[in-house]
Amino acid sequence: MRTSARNAELALLLEVAGTPKPGNVDRRRDLPDLHFDHFLAGAVGAVDGLRAAEDGAPVGEAFERGVRGMAADHGRNTQFGALLLLVPLVRAASEDALSPGGTERVVEATTMDDAAEFYRAFEHCEVFVDEPPEDAPELDVRRGSEAIPDLERHGLTLADVMRMSEAGDDVAREWTHGFERSFRAAERIADLDGPLSERGARTFLDLLAAYPDTLVATKHGEGAARRAGERAKRARDADDPSAAVEALADEFVEEGINPGTTADIVAAGLFVALERGVEP
Amino acid sequence: MRTSARNAELALLLEVAGTPKPGNVDRRRDLPDLHFDHFLAGAVGAVDGLRAAEDGAPVGEAFERGVRGMAADHGRNTQFGALLLLVPLVRAASEDALSPGGTERVVEATTMDDAAEFYRAFEHCEVFVDEPPEDAPELDVRRGSEAIPDLERHGLTLADVMRMSEAGDDVAREWTHGFERSFRAAERIADLDGPLSERGARTFLDLLAAYPDTLVATKHGEGAARRAGERAKRARDADDPSAAVEALADEFVEEGINPGTTADIVAAGLFVALERGVEP
Repeated sequence: MRTSARNAELALLLEVAGTPKPGNVDRRRDLPDLHFDHFLAGAVGAVDGLRAAEDGAPVGEAFERGVRGMAADHGRNTQFGALLLLVPLVRAASEDALSPGGTERVVEATTMDDAAEFYRAFEHCEVFVDEPPEDAPELDVRRGSEAIPDLERHGLTLADVMRMSEAGDDVAREWTHGFERSFRAAERIADLDGPLSERGARTFLDLLAAYPDTLVATKHGEGAARRAGERAKRARDADDPSAAVEALADEFVEEGINPGTTADIVAAGLFVALERGVEP
Repeated sequence: MRTSARNAELALLLEVAGTPKPGNVDRRRDLPDLHFDHFLAGAVGAVDGLRAAEDGAPVGEAFERGVRGMAADHGRNTQFGALLLLVPLVRAASEDALSPGGTERVVEATTMDDAAEFYRAFEHCEVFVDEPPEDAPELDVRRGSEAIPDLERHGLTLADVMRMSEAGDDVAREWTHGFERSFRAAERIADLDGPLSERGARTFLDLLAAYPDTLVATKHGEGAARRAGERAKRARDADDPSAAVEALADEFVEEGINPGTTADIVAAGLFVALERGVEP
């Protein structure tokens, strides 16, 4: 029986192995600056943070530790968003409460210290994020620990920080909506047949077809994200979906369309599925 | 800084990711009963055993625990041989003695208890092995723990067991020859350029061209193993090695030629390279 931390690590590995996953690193494709190997090293490096979450460390501290380990080799961001979903899920699982309600309790229990650790995590690697709120530029996550005094002045918990970001970031939206899409992804994964990484890739496509990816929206605008989702849907529903999705994967890599948030949610879904006894 | 147990886990992951690796599961190929995902789960499952080796547990106990974790999902044998190399290497590294002499000390310090745990490990999954010595059929490893009283009657340590097998099994030969090829593979990996998994695949081909794979010999005979090595050498030295090696990979899968021992030694070489600071 794998512990929750190990299931989370395995979920990260199965996520990246799933192919075709248009626009993302997968078993068949690398990106110009990100190689499959970096994801393997990132998953192995993150485990101490995941284990901290399992052992009851504060969520922010466990996340910061996971990101630090993930980025230890070269400061690459391979699984920042996925870890931001997995850490509270591992915590909920360790409390035998891996459910929407259980994750809501984990989220609402976060403190200002958790928010401070979350900001510190941005110092370990580059994270592509939206501009901060116009009325609170001092809360820019890219300031890292320099923003902590401002965070404390505003009295913000990590849950508050996520509420501030939920409109433009579907990882934050999971935090504030009981991990709705993560749990739905887990159900989809459990219903499908075949190797788990392939079920993850199929679920990736379904999610991308249903919800414009917010990382794509941040980088290329909401129109581009919506169009990417429509193309995913067309490829999935094509007469020869296999060829269409492979072609789309090449196009997205070419165009720099990288639906990373969707991949993060698939990793979360794989974790929940593994916890529920789906076997690799 | 990764611990030795984590480097060993990462070595298992990088090994399976390397492609093309004719006849083996790799980033592009699965075998009929073994999928890439099973290797990911095997590596994650083995970590408790690797950590036990790092923390000073007896080598046999750490190995048995690693194999048990590796096989926990479905009793599949994904990395039995690789773990048999990695456990003593992790132990030597934890004693700051990751050298041929250091591994010899680890091997010579093994006891009858280590031998008994080694036999127990065979109960967790199917391992393809040669027939036992004609004069000692009771020492057949496939008997698992039933053979332990006979082991004890013979007074055999795990080092003794490896000496009995070295002629037909190059994993055992590493144990009795200061991990000679594992260290040489590590040097080769350090000298090459590119992503570590690709360097592993290239080293796999060099090893296979130089030494007939003993798992292939056990399954198909020594002639078949020698011919497989010659074909690997020809493909590597072809005018278009990339196409030739890809073609050979398809042929080997078709013919059931699975050079698993060579892959085990690559995993050991990747571990040593990571310990020496080669970065993924």
